[in-house]
Amino acid sequence: MKPYVEMTAEELTAELAELKAQYKKVQALGMHLDMSRGKPCQEQLDLSMGMMDVLSSTDDLTCEDGTDCRNYGALTGIKEARELLGDMMENNPKDIIIYGNSSLNVMFDTISRAWTHGIMGNTPWCKLDEVKFLCPVPGYDRHFAITGYFGIKMIPVPMTPTGPDMDIVEKLVAEDPAIKGIWCVPKYSNPQGISYDDATVRRFARLKPAAPDFRIFWDNAYGIHHLYDDRQDYLIEILAECKRAGNPDLVYKFSSTSKITFPGSGIAALATSPNNMEDFTTHLRHQTIGHDKVNQLRHVRFFGNIHGMVEHMRKHADIIRPKFEIVTSTLERDLGGLGVGTWTNPLGGYFVMFNSLSGCAKDIVSRCKKAGVIMTPAGATWPNGQDPNDSNIRIAPTFPSLADLQAAMDIFTLCVRISSAKKILAEKQAA
Amino acid sequence: MKPYVEMTAEELTAELAELKAQYKKVQALGMHLDMSRGKPCQEQLDLSMGMMDVLSSTDDLTCEDGTDCRNYGALTGIKEARELLGDMMENNPKDIIIYGNSSLNVMFDTISRAWTHGIMGNTPWCKLDEVKFLCPVPGYDRHFAITGYFGIKMIPVPMTPTGPDMDIVEKLVAEDPAIKGIWCVPKYSNPQGISYDDATVRRFARLKPAAPDFRIFWDNAYGIHHLYDDRQDYLIEILAECKRAGNPDLVYKFSSTSKITFPGSGIAALATSPNNMEDFTTHLRHQTIGHDKVNQLRHVRFFGNIHGMVEHMRKHADIIRPKFEIVTSTLERDLGGLGVGTWTNPLGGYFVMFNSLSGCAKDIVSRCKKAGVIMTPAGATWPNGQDPNDSNIRIAPTFPSLADLQAAMDIFTLCVRISSAKKILAEKQAA
Repeated sequence: MKPYVEMTAEELTAELAELKAQYKKVQALGMHLDMSRGKPCQEQLDLSMGMMDVLSSTDDLTCEDGTDCRNYGALTGIKEARELLGDMMENNPKDIIIYGNSSLNVMFDTISRAWTHGIMGNTPWCKLDEVKFLCPVPGYDRHFAITGYFGIKMIPVPMTPTGPDMDIVEKLVAEDPAIKGIWCVPKYSNPQGISYDDATVRRFARLKPAAPDFRIFWDNAYGIHHLYDDRQDYLIEILAECKRAGNPDLVYKFSSTSKITFPGSGIAALATSPNNMEDFTTHLRHQTIGHDKVNQLRHVRFFGNIHGMVEHMRKHADIIRPKFEIVTSTLERDLGGLGVGTWTNPLGGYFVMFNSLSGCAKDIVSRCKKAGVIMTPAGATWPNGQDPNDSNIRIAPTFPSLADLQAAMDIFTLCVRISSAKKILAEKQAA
Repeated sequence: MKPYVEMTAEELTAELAELKAQYKKVQALGMHLDMSRGKPCQEQLDLSMGMMDVLSSTDDLTCEDGTDCRNYGALTGIKEARELLGDMMENNPKDIIIYGNSSLNVMFDTISRAWTHGIMGNTPWCKLDEVKFLCPVPGYDRHFAITGYFGIKMIPVPMTPTGPDMDIVEKLVAEDPAIKGIWCVPKYSNPQGISYDDATVRRFARLKPAAPDFRIFWDNAYGIHHLYDDRQDYLIEILAECKRAGNPDLVYKFSSTSKITFPGSGIAALATSPNNMEDFTTHLRHQTIGHDKVNQLRHVRFFGNIHGMVEHMRKHADIIRPKFEIVTSTLERDLGGLGVGTWTNPLGGYFVMFNSLSGCAKDIVSRCKKAGVIMTPAGATWPNGQDPNDSNIRIAPTFPSLADLQAAMDIFTLCVRISSAKKILAEKQAA
């Protein structure tokens, strides 16, 4: 089939009639498919059921250093867990704090701490007239929700195929002391599934922010979440790079096992410089006596070491790889050559990004909904839910079954074609 | 033996010489006993080891309503856990949010939320010139640490044997709109081990605070932590009482299973009015996707219901009751009639409070330390660690073994006698 823009009005009208007939048939099936969130599917969760067996009533819940995991204490986490997550995050265990079950919570608390107490002796953000964050777009809606909740002004920065546009980032942070942070998902990014290239990471480590309390919020949520054994993205480790660049305190790096073991029952971690660490622990000391050490020990006993974790991630990949392939192959099959959108082909992570023709995303998502397929809301990948081009849609392939996913993608591409054909036809008729 | 004040200087000098000789012998033993924190002992922790067996890889981790506890979701907790903690807290499950592993963390976050976003539409506390909290004294050091960390001015209010002095509380909150809260441990209080009587709770529910965003921080940490079957304190349920009094939004009630199952691996909960609940969940929605539901389910499966929890608490009581009795009987045996201090005889909780002669507490704690017994620092029970009388000492009997506890208490009473005899002798000699 030729590109829609090259069709005549008559051809497009015929195409649209055919597509709408298909759509009616699909609607009649009354499907209910939820593609809205990046959740692991049941088969993935089943991979970690062994976690329920590694600690039993006859086991000793004592750490190597004698800490009884059942009692109070160990504010920054048990040594074994810091070592395991150190290997996972490519950081020294001494630079790591193990938190509770959610890295999102740690990020929220970090903004909240900066708001109430300031960062390393700087003015608390609540005392400033304005606080701004750079938000690479499209990006992760829950990041933007946190900064939005605090009334932080969010400045969109375009994402390129190699990461945020660093010319813009460098310029803005150097100019404006009100800019206090930037949200990053540097590896298998949400929603693109792309990874920052070496030059981007190096430029991040060498930023010269006007604000002494500017920090990079480096949410490495998908650090070991590869889809393939033989094709994997590699990301330069940011803490080490910042240290080499003479900016050791520039970055907060977050990670968790949420999409490795159980979302909601994993363990989260922060890696950062000794100075930042002191800032975090001062706060933490008032906030809690310690996090769930039994769950930390459970993770350590389950994986044994980083090799066990890597093997475990292979099993995840085996389950979700075919799902990603359904998404990209269906997009290619139904939309290839039509000139109605572009999409990414990630090697890892949880998402595929689709960009429709300008002004079509909301319409596509709405059409999907009316046919029983719930997508992430159009606009969610932008601060305040406002996508100026109305073109970005996040596709989350992991949760549905293969059959459901195929059905959902069939509907999705159908809706993309309808919406695109309508738009192009209207333009032709107006011309 | 007669009261020290009735002894002559010669008698006191002789007594002191005898006590110091004993102290030297004790020091020579080189003991290391830690009585500083209210931690459960190993036998208590062993009671909950069954928790490690109730969920295995062959179990279904699905809730009655179909929620898969392993995946994301259930922001306010799973229904079963809200019901169990509802029974524990004497509240309707719909008024309960289940949090992570620490109620202290929930309290911290609550202050932090008020600081950054304000309470129910009122001005965020960070925008106010001054924020004050009432602190019944002696009280819990970690409460005071939170308010101190936020720069909140802490106003001590004397505790009586029936709770805080309500004449003072009522007057202060009615007069001063800068007073935004009061810390309470209403049952088996820390450090007294006393419970607020009916009149006190009723007066709390009927406070007429000048500040619309004044809240009672009701930390019911020891609600079911009785030592005896036949003698138990009873506390009027505060939420219901506030509702009856027409002040439904006046109180935040906190609790947890930290001293029921495992400290650090329990579940925490908040109970409050629907209006407050909306405030909490708005915040929570930005802060996390949900807490650890697997651990919630683990608690539900372990206890079955509230009766199971009550039976479990009987076993705790059997372990720690003899420890409390060692403390109070040793105090009575060694100090009874000497007029050198007073102490409480709690029916539950985790602490016994000792009041020395004025100006002796630091000296006593320091002498204990030099003989190998670590007590909670003198002053810890007061805001900023400043006990104006230098007389209050918190005794935490649960963690040491019976033998260690007896040894520690022998040293403690010896130190009390030395310190008191010295003080009285000095006064006599000065007279």
